[in-house]
Amino acid sequence: MPTQFDPPSGTRDFLAAEYDKRERAFGVLRSVFASYGYEPLQTPAFERLDVLLGKYGEEADKLVFKILRRGEHEASGEADLALRYDMTVPLARVAAAYGSQLPTPYKRYAIGPVWRADRPGRGRFREFTQCDLDTLGTTSPLADAEAFCAQHDAIVALGLTDFTINLNSRQVLSGLLEVFEVPAGLGAGVLISLDKIDNLSPGAVVDEITGRGLDQATAASLVGVMTAPDAVERIRVALKPSEAGMAGLDQVDTLLRLARAQIPAERIAFNPRMVRGLSYYTGPIWEVTARGGAGSLGGGGRYDHLIEQLGGPDVPATGTSLGIERVLMLLPEDVAGRRGRIDVAVPVLGEELAERSFALGATARSAGLRASVYLGSSGKLGRQLRWASDSGARWCLIYGPAERDTGTVTVRDMAGGQQQAVALDEVAGFLASRAAADA
Amino acid sequence: MPTQFDPPSGTRDFLAAEYDKRERAFGVLRSVFASYGYEPLQTPAFERLDVLLGKYGEEADKLVFKILRRGEHEASGEADLALRYDMTVPLARVAAAYGSQLPTPYKRYAIGPVWRADRPGRGRFREFTQCDLDTLGTTSPLADAEAFCAQHDAIVALGLTDFTINLNSRQVLSGLLEVFEVPAGLGAGVLISLDKIDNLSPGAVVDEITGRGLDQATAASLVGVMTAPDAVERIRVALKPSEAGMAGLDQVDTLLRLARAQIPAERIAFNPRMVRGLSYYTGPIWEVTARGGAGSLGGGGRYDHLIEQLGGPDVPATGTSLGIERVLMLLPEDVAGRRGRIDVAVPVLGEELAERSFALGATARSAGLRASVYLGSSGKLGRQLRWASDSGARWCLIYGPAERDTGTVTVRDMAGGQQQAVALDEVAGFLASRAAADA
Repeated sequence: MPTQFDPPSGTRDFLAAEYDKRERAFGVLRSVFASYGYEPLQTPAFERLDVLLGKYGEEADKLVFKILRRGEHEASGEADLALRYDMTVPLARVAAAYGSQLPTPYKRYAIGPVWRADRPGRGRFREFTQCDLDTLGTTSPLADAEAFCAQHDAIVALGLTDFTINLNSRQVLSGLLEVFEVPAGLGAGVLISLDKIDNLSPGAVVDEITGRGLDQATAASLVGVMTAPDAVERIRVALKPSEAGMAGLDQVDTLLRLARAQIPAERIAFNPRMVRGLSYYTGPIWEVTARGGAGSLGGGGRYDHLIEQLGGPDVPATGTSLGIERVLMLLPEDVAGRRGRIDVAVPVLGEELAERSFALGATARSAGLRASVYLGSSGKLGRQLRWASDSGARWCLIYGPAERDTGTVTVRDMAGGQQQAVALDEVAGFLASRAAADA
Repeated sequence: MPTQFDPPSGTRDFLAAEYDKRERAFGVLRSVFASYGYEPLQTPAFERLDVLLGKYGEEADKLVFKILRRGEHEASGEADLALRYDMTVPLARVAAAYGSQLPTPYKRYAIGPVWRADRPGRGRFREFTQCDLDTLGTTSPLADAEAFCAQHDAIVALGLTDFTINLNSRQVLSGLLEVFEVPAGLGAGVLISLDKIDNLSPGAVVDEITGRGLDQATAASLVGVMTAPDAVERIRVALKPSEAGMAGLDQVDTLLRLARAQIPAERIAFNPRMVRGLSYYTGPIWEVTARGGAGSLGGGGRYDHLIEQLGGPDVPATGTSLGIERVLMLLPEDVAGRRGRIDVAVPVLGEELAERSFALGATARSAGLRASVYLGSSGKLGRQLRWASDSGARWCLIYGPAERDTGTVTVRDMAGGQQQAVALDEVAGFLASRAAADA
């Protein structure tokens, strides 16, 4: 039940454990993407309204969070800015703004929040992180292969291995429409229906396609080829008369060959049924599916005219987007994230001993450990040891009157409760060696 | 001159070098803050409008970016959400929302963008990063000391050493107003004027104070004490009759003693002239000043009632904010940031050799290096070597027909131009050992 203190609908607060898990994942992604020579890019949270609107159609425009004009213009009720809806429109703007300062080709990744006023639901947020990588300025299939190989390596580096990259090409799909003589006006709709083959029965898909106006015989034979156990072989044969279709097969085969050295064979396959909804793709397309029905982890493809359509220069482009929120949900509970908040807890046993106890925190930090003094109001050791335990501390550094008299610190092992007196000037070395032994 | 492709006024695009510099700095901060046991917290970019407005007064409310309602409500021109203005209002909401799930005391840091519709100017942005750390739920002076010690360590870890932490206390200031018998109604204004002593002449400050209604003799003697070479000693004496003043001096002395083990003496001092404008402080206050006139790097203090005023629970609190944008500007050009985009460049000498060249990229990555194949359209080695050089690559892996015939790769050292034939299956080891020798 939402309260007045909850974050706004569809957004989340990330407390320590979740934050750390996400930050670590983003660090892994940055490192994998950099290993391919992709550069980071970060653009503002908002863009001018005219940069954002009208780029993805009316439905998308409705999902844009618009920012009210300010000052004397606020009363107009008009917006002049809007929160970033994706990473591609800002990329197009950046390509236009910094053209000659950017390397050619421009390989960039972007990891950051985007905002969409979608109806929030299970796994669907209004503020969520997008993780894109794209290459502008080259038609080389090596750029396509780099994109999905980098994405593959990123998913593996995050800890998932049970997934498949489904490769296809828009030309394979147009070739199919061509050889089955699907009327031009019906093509797009037929593809949308074919995309449902994995979720509906073949009969239902045939019905949907005939509902779109295609004759029953063609629809049935198209769906028959697509769902046959030897679909790939039959499609390779069927496409022979189509120039586009053969070019598409050639794209797919080139990418499969390039991937061979980097992606295990069971993790990548030609999947002629994979359509990807977005009409802006112009060449190879791919989608990454987690096995066991967990759905799409991301995907991408070549989109040689989109950057220009979005207001950027006329450059060929290819890229891929990782569904990082989905990936994060599939990752096992993060063991490292369950580490305590501190390694070393320092009780404070009286005001006149506080200065030394406070300094012991610094000593522990100088040994590379996370440390804090007790900040509560209880003077009792028992209470403070409970705090140390709640904080997940590995060691406690106890400095009371007895320790002051002997110039020592009592180091308590919080796991077993063993205590040991250590000379004040040997505490840092002692902790460092104990921590090294633990690691 | 702004163009249609520039980011919105007051915001910035961060291309690779700047992004890397910032990300590295944020990583340093996270690590230092964690070493003190502060936990990370990330809240959404926007809050509900009623959570944000009316918290810092009308002037601040004017600087809030408001988000238009959506769907059928958009036409109303009303806002229901607003971009985060600072990190403290979200902290108050989080403290209210997750109270019992949070540790006591709750030590958290927050690093992220905030948005203010200020007039943009040199070093003043509408989207900028705030970096706060705060401790809720304790009145212990150790919590104050941890806050500025952690901030001190963070600045040092970022590479700045030439700065001073000016310590003071609101009670010292009230004590001064008390012993100089400044009428209650004038106190706040007098403090605002005293805060200008470092920027105006003593006479100008006296004039400003008398302009506020204080008599000339009191104003002159107050400014005289504050600007005396032995101001600290004179103030210590002057405050003797004031209970508040003596309590304030005691706070300052406690903090100086606690800091002793961690902060070099030349970097921290009692500065009775330091006022800090914000009226919500209730105890010790501090400000970090870069030497050489570069101004404030941050500051903080104890604010025991603010969290409740902001809509949170009634908890004592202390914390500090680092002016990370300012600090980043003072940092020297980042040498690591000027590293090339890739370590290893792989030319592609003909379509039939592309597969092997592409795989050589993976080989280099397996040796821990950043690598990319050539993605352009030129088949000429000379052109591709220029690309390799422009990319800042340290090595080139050349695989042409001659290399194919001998099962080798020509490894070119881009610095000196020396070339060496290496067997295909030894390339990874060769690169790893060369990289280790470089490091």
